[in-house]
Amino acid sequence: MSYDYLLHIALILISTKIFGLITQKFQMPQVVGALLAGLVLGPAFGINWLAPSDMLTKLAELGVIIIMFSAGMGTSVQDLRKSGKPGFFIALCGVLVPLFMGALLAFFFNRGDLAHPGSPILQNFFIGVILTATSVSITVETLREIGKLQTKVGNAILAAAIIDDVLGLIALTIITSLAGADVNVWIVLLKILLFFVFIAVVWILFKPAFNWYAARRQSKNLHRYPIIAFVLCLLMAYLAEEIFGVADIIGAFAAGLIIASTSKGEYIANKFQPMQYLFLTPIFFANIGLQVEIPEMTWQIILFAVLLVLIAVLSKLIGCGFGAKCCGFTNREALQTGFGMACRGEVALIVANKGMAMGLLPNALFGPVIIMVVCCAVFTPVLLKLVFKPAHGEDVYSSLEESALTDRLEGHEQLEILSDQILTANKEMQKKQ
Amino acid sequence: MSYDYLLHIALILISTKIFGLITQKFQMPQVVGALLAGLVLGPAFGINWLAPSDMLTKLAELGVIIIMFSAGMGTSVQDLRKSGKPGFFIALCGVLVPLFMGALLAFFFNRGDLAHPGSPILQNFFIGVILTATSVSITVETLREIGKLQTKVGNAILAAAIIDDVLGLIALTIITSLAGADVNVWIVLLKILLFFVFIAVVWILFKPAFNWYAARRQSKNLHRYPIIAFVLCLLMAYLAEEIFGVADIIGAFAAGLIIASTSKGEYIANKFQPMQYLFLTPIFFANIGLQVEIPEMTWQIILFAVLLVLIAVLSKLIGCGFGAKCCGFTNREALQTGFGMACRGEVALIVANKGMAMGLLPNALFGPVIIMVVCCAVFTPVLLKLVFKPAHGEDVYSSLEESALTDRLEGHEQLEILSDQILTANKEMQKKQ
Repeated sequence: MSYDYLLHIALILISTKIFGLITQKFQMPQVVGALLAGLVLGPAFGINWLAPSDMLTKLAELGVIIIMFSAGMGTSVQDLRKSGKPGFFIALCGVLVPLFMGALLAFFFNRGDLAHPGSPILQNFFIGVILTATSVSITVETLREIGKLQTKVGNAILAAAIIDDVLGLIALTIITSLAGADVNVWIVLLKILLFFVFIAVVWILFKPAFNWYAARRQSKNLHRYPIIAFVLCLLMAYLAEEIFGVADIIGAFAAGLIIASTSKGEYIANKFQPMQYLFLTPIFFANIGLQVEIPEMTWQIILFAVLLVLIAVLSKLIGCGFGAKCCGFTNREALQTGFGMACRGEVALIVANKGMAMGLLPNALFGPVIIMVVCCAVFTPVLLKLVFKPAHGEDVYSSLEESALTDRLEGHEQLEILSDQILTANKEMQKKQ
Repeated sequence: MSYDYLLHIALILISTKIFGLITQKFQMPQVVGALLAGLVLGPAFGINWLAPSDMLTKLAELGVIIIMFSAGMGTSVQDLRKSGKPGFFIALCGVLVPLFMGALLAFFFNRGDLAHPGSPILQNFFIGVILTATSVSITVETLREIGKLQTKVGNAILAAAIIDDVLGLIALTIITSLAGADVNVWIVLLKILLFFVFIAVVWILFKPAFNWYAARRQSKNLHRYPIIAFVLCLLMAYLAEEIFGVADIIGAFAAGLIIASTSKGEYIANKFQPMQYLFLTPIFFANIGLQVEIPEMTWQIILFAVLLVLIAVLSKLIGCGFGAKCCGFTNREALQTGFGMACRGEVALIVANKGMAMGLLPNALFGPVIIMVVCCAVFTPVLLKLVFKPAHGEDVYSSLEESALTDRLEGHEQLEILSDQILTANKEMQKKQ
């Protein structure tokens, strides 16, 4: 067995932290630094200190599953339910606008060198489909970092991004089934419906069973609770992906919601924090950077790439912003929602990959898709942090909330100091004996 | 990408916990349950729900690295230094006795069907070499579980097991180099020496640099401290294995000692707990069980296997017990030390594997070696727990110490209740705004 993976994990941990601290210095979220670390140390610029591997890919997948699981555990179902209606409308506009704007862009480029056999209409709309799916994970991590996840906008983004994934999935399914693959649209839609029934059934069965078990143990906090929670998360992620054809992260998120509703929700959520920042989250973000290979460029492709990035951000901004405005959000909130939904990630890459395999996307355009994903992943956190910055003297709510965050942090610190004291006292007690 | 690994991890987590709780009911450590879970669900009995994979092997390796890293962080260097002299003597006797007893056993079986070409003396001594290396990880986990890691015997076992690994390594090197491989014994010995110099240099440089950095940050507890510690652990494990030819877990243990000596030792050690019990430790122990395939058996091989198990335990008991007695331990402590050193693990398997490749071990005897490792891994924790059980009214020290442990646990629980209260208060504060 080669031990190189130890070195690679060490390199990822230290580089993402250093890059994260640098980006933080420039008022950018640490997430951007983590992405850049993967980009810089990976194959993109020929440095090749790190390369994508099966191990890293699986750990990265586990990382995003736990990020979404924690996001679920940190989400109040009451708040999410309140956001359900605006969430749906924001998601719908946020899928339709990118779908048509992407198709329009592709229409102008689907000729000459870039034309390829098959139905041009499906090919054009396929570019649109790539632009539909928001990568909620980066947004969630950024919102968490700046302490805005549990706000009205944060909840709307979360709800919209989840619905958006489902809508994007439907769009992908329709396009690919029209392209002649042997997929039945109705079966796919039925499976998605069954998945939500499945979540409801698990919720109804699991929550009281868990609470009953925990109450029997005289409400002690035991190791087995986070273990049970983790098992639920992994199983739901697995079943979502393998049985229902829905993204694994949606299953993990649902598991998080269920766990949050139990009597041990807070305790369990705390136990997953170190595993995230200490191990899996850096690997997930570095791994996105690692996947990038700068493709060979013609001027036509560079132009396409630049326009694709612009349209990716603009179409979500217009679609989701419009949706948010219609739901009675303020201009500022609509802007925050639009940028919050603009992030693309691994789903876009997976969709693009599938399109290449089915002849719907020419290989030459995979490069621009990657560039689009990276630019969105790097810029949306920056933009998001910017639009959430409290304007001077205007945003009392935000600054109040920030002080609450500071209070919470201080509470944590006091707790840790206390913890240190207790541990030290115990150690001394042991020594004395 | 297949998502089966999610299912496998879920299965490992839930089965090791259930089996662990069952073994605990029967007064056995949970570690035994975790091993049995891997054995039962793996290929050994044809159930095959789980199978060894590259991913699991690497995660298991990471698991044992973190177990040893935590053991290092929990070890007081002062105490270890006190145990250095008895540790060395215990280790020396604990290597020599198994080496010769193993060779003697092999001498009686190295004939007929089991004879194979090459030097019989080297072949016989090779069986002895397999028996030399104590697998300290299972012992450490068991001692930690019953709260005896930081005792006189616990420290002696730790020190002896570390020295024992080095001595076993030297024995392996000598045997394999005599068998004609192009390994130079002196270079290997030089590398081991250099490794200890390397540890000292890292210690001298890292500790003050880290303390200075931590002091600059006004002694706040930051995410970066455990990250830096983890990077140090991974790097030292990697360098131990790849540069110095020493086991990676020795490097991780040394990193733990270094971290424990810094100003943030306690804080960092706490952050590694959930990642262990929640994720990596179950995978490590289940993975040992997974590696077992019950080999085809003749009566001769079964007899050999039974005797090998007996000699494996007896030789360590005699050797280490004698060593401990000579160092002024009581009979009871000598017994505890002997059983504590009797556990074999992955090192024995790796050595046996190497021996097969070099023609020093006939393939037919690999089965008995596996059986020996599993039996030692399953029985030594049980025996260890037994010999550490306070005799009625006799062992005041132990029971005092146990009450200290209970106090500490209660302290932790109070802390968690407090933590829950603070978090709830914060949440309510947030909702009010």
